[in-house]
Amino acid sequence: MGCAGHQSAGLWTHPGDRSTSYTDLSYWTDLARLLERGGFDALFLADVLGVYDVHGGSRDTAVRAGAQVPLIDPMLTIPAMAAVTERLGFAVTSSVTYEHPWATARRFTTLDHLTNGRVGWNVVTSYLASAARGYGMGEQVPHDRRYDLAEEYVEVCAALWEGSWEDGAVVHDSASATFTDPSKVHDVDHDGEFFSVHGPFLCEPSPQRTPVVFQAGASARGLELGGRIAEVVFVSGPTTAAVRTMVDGVRAAAQAAGRDRGDIKVLTMLTPVLADTDDAAWAKHADYVAHSSREGAMALFGGWTGVDLSGLDPDAPLEHVENDATRTALAAFTTADPHAAWTVGSVAEFVAVGGRGPVLVGSPTTVADELERWCEEADVDGFNLAYATSPGTFTDVVDLLVPELRARGRILEPEGATLRERLVGGTARLSNSSWVGKHRK
Amino acid sequence: MGCAGHQSAGLWTHPGDRSTSYTDLSYWTDLARLLERGGFDALFLADVLGVYDVHGGSRDTAVRAGAQVPLIDPMLTIPAMAAVTERLGFAVTSSVTYEHPWATARRFTTLDHLTNGRVGWNVVTSYLASAARGYGMGEQVPHDRRYDLAEEYVEVCAALWEGSWEDGAVVHDSASATFTDPSKVHDVDHDGEFFSVHGPFLCEPSPQRTPVVFQAGASARGLELGGRIAEVVFVSGPTTAAVRTMVDGVRAAAQAAGRDRGDIKVLTMLTPVLADTDDAAWAKHADYVAHSSREGAMALFGGWTGVDLSGLDPDAPLEHVENDATRTALAAFTTADPHAAWTVGSVAEFVAVGGRGPVLVGSPTTVADELERWCEEADVDGFNLAYATSPGTFTDVVDLLVPELRARGRILEPEGATLRERLVGGTARLSNSSWVGKHRK
Repeated sequence: MGCAGHQSAGLWTHPGDRSTSYTDLSYWTDLARLLERGGFDALFLADVLGVYDVHGGSRDTAVRAGAQVPLIDPMLTIPAMAAVTERLGFAVTSSVTYEHPWATARRFTTLDHLTNGRVGWNVVTSYLASAARGYGMGEQVPHDRRYDLAEEYVEVCAALWEGSWEDGAVVHDSASATFTDPSKVHDVDHDGEFFSVHGPFLCEPSPQRTPVVFQAGASARGLELGGRIAEVVFVSGPTTAAVRTMVDGVRAAAQAAGRDRGDIKVLTMLTPVLADTDDAAWAKHADYVAHSSREGAMALFGGWTGVDLSGLDPDAPLEHVENDATRTALAAFTTADPHAAWTVGSVAEFVAVGGRGPVLVGSPTTVADELERWCEEADVDGFNLAYATSPGTFTDVVDLLVPELRARGRILEPEGATLRERLVGGTARLSNSSWVGKHRK
Repeated sequence: MGCAGHQSAGLWTHPGDRSTSYTDLSYWTDLARLLERGGFDALFLADVLGVYDVHGGSRDTAVRAGAQVPLIDPMLTIPAMAAVTERLGFAVTSSVTYEHPWATARRFTTLDHLTNGRVGWNVVTSYLASAARGYGMGEQVPHDRRYDLAEEYVEVCAALWEGSWEDGAVVHDSASATFTDPSKVHDVDHDGEFFSVHGPFLCEPSPQRTPVVFQAGASARGLELGGRIAEVVFVSGPTTAAVRTMVDGVRAAAQAAGRDRGDIKVLTMLTPVLADTDDAAWAKHADYVAHSSREGAMALFGGWTGVDLSGLDPDAPLEHVENDATRTALAAFTTADPHAAWTVGSVAEFVAVGGRGPVLVGSPTTVADELERWCEEADVDGFNLAYATSPGTFTDVVDLLVPELRARGRILEPEGATLRERLVGGTARLSNSSWVGKHRK
């Protein structure tokens, strides 16, 4: 995320953390080089469009802790990182709620060109009421309606990406002074419930055309959409049991949409804390906990769930509250894992290092064992590794964990130049039988 | 511009042109390195959000000629170029008509952070009806109303940039776990005719806060706005007399807004064609003309002016047509220079190499003399150099013209790290007495 700390509020206070320099290009280019060296498939950039102001009914806790505020537009870091890497992919969050698909489609095609096909789009419907106020909407669009909008949005983008410029339209024929054969460029003519789009796409086709589609929604309506269009789905939860429930839901949604259960790659978020020995790793973890901010964590939790934990007894049990937002975040702590006795205090402690995902602490052997257990018990295809400190966590992963995982044959080195080929498999472009097929000329 | 050819339609067919590789990052990073080596103040990126489809009532001519279509989002090239340069500035067009200031303000602040204060914003109100259709607006916003919107838009951005985060708000105080002092972060509360924006800006202040404000509108309403807020204004026209009229208008507008006549730096567009000798330069020019596309030029002219030249007798005189669009582009050919006997054919020929600006052909001495004449007769502060071929034109400028201009003391090497200091003078940030002053806390 284009901020300090991201999931581990307050860890920017750690002397080894460099994430307060998130405004410097070199922070991002150094990080990209490190991840490429370590064989990461992609760097994922989250985003929000408002501040976290549920906790205590104010943004002050988040602002003081630096909990995902201030933050920059993450998309703009990608071209610089692409310039210093050759294989690393980049997935970035872009919300369907506030910007027009005519602009968003061009941005992603631009990124896909500039990265030579290494880009993914995390399709989100924004969850912060503060973002709606920033954009001058008095209230957020209701949850399920946001997904109706999302569905129309991605269809419009797909029409622009897949249906406007035929393969072979761009010929660069100097003899006939023909840059593009006009007969192979087609208008998109869309008049929908939310958007009207008329005209040809402004961009020539990029290597992937449609960027790799990421999604994170775990609601019924979100799963339905993801089951149809997502290639990668992010989940997160504190235990393998909680995450397994989500993964089963994703795979069932793929099946319900007529795809194979394994067609969607499911990645769960977690934060590894590594050292040469288990004892040294636990000492490092204790140091991280000491630098974490429970206040900041509760501010993040408030934004994710809509639940204000301020002023509550830390020993009070965490109760499930049924509303739109709780379907995703809070459910991971209660519904999906009903036997875990979460209290206000234990949730704050849990979230303070690693956010919504678990923290795996230990030697490379211990953490690799844990990752294998997660793959088996939670049925995930891979991991979205968050950091306690940046780049410290990633340096440890690359230098300590990756060699262990390589020795176990757990890091694949796929063929292909594009993110789709390397992360999802298949070809650079989505197949004609996929959801975009109907848009193709 | 994020396309091949830009102002010189068809020149992508020249064997020495590399602009068809505008989708490659290395095209942009190589260009940025070249311009920095040559002492350029900034690279300016134009943009459009639709295709040119006035000529012949169809986009086909523009598509075939590659006249500013296809094109990518130019903003996304900047971070990569910034990563390989240290002083070069970057100005980029961003329209106020289609995107929300909440998002635009964050994008420019992000760029200003990532470039260490080297960014300018060319504020435009879009002129292509095809862009309005892409964004699902049946018709364009009427011209003067677009400037009302522009004025409100930049005021909202300035409120976010200048008025939300006080200097010293970000403290990074680990001891008290204070990233930002919440008492120094303020809501923007704006309810205007066009926009509502409520909340604190998402970004911490960047080196310049408000990017250097560029503008190009030459209409009465455009000049009025520019006179108040612009730091740099682009003009273009075929002769020094035509441009002088525009420059006088800009300086008068500054004066009318209570500023000094010299407070706005006025840059006129032109295309230099250079070689060691005048004869060699004219031979080069003939080669460019042979590779240019008059059809493509007329497609561009149609978009700029709203005037369709297709099917007209090339010898027919060009007549002034009074409408919104002609106030800017067509006026340069007729109203402002009434004695020049422009015909349909001569305009097409003129525009085909160098677009709306003149082409200066000759040895470094000849072209430097011409530039000095332009400075004197047209009262411009500098030049926005367009290319016939890219990077060929710029390579010639850097290797041939720049040494001559340096020898004449005509290239300044200003102090300061930011674009504002280097191009406009003063400090990195706008003064309290400027138009943004009222937004400051």
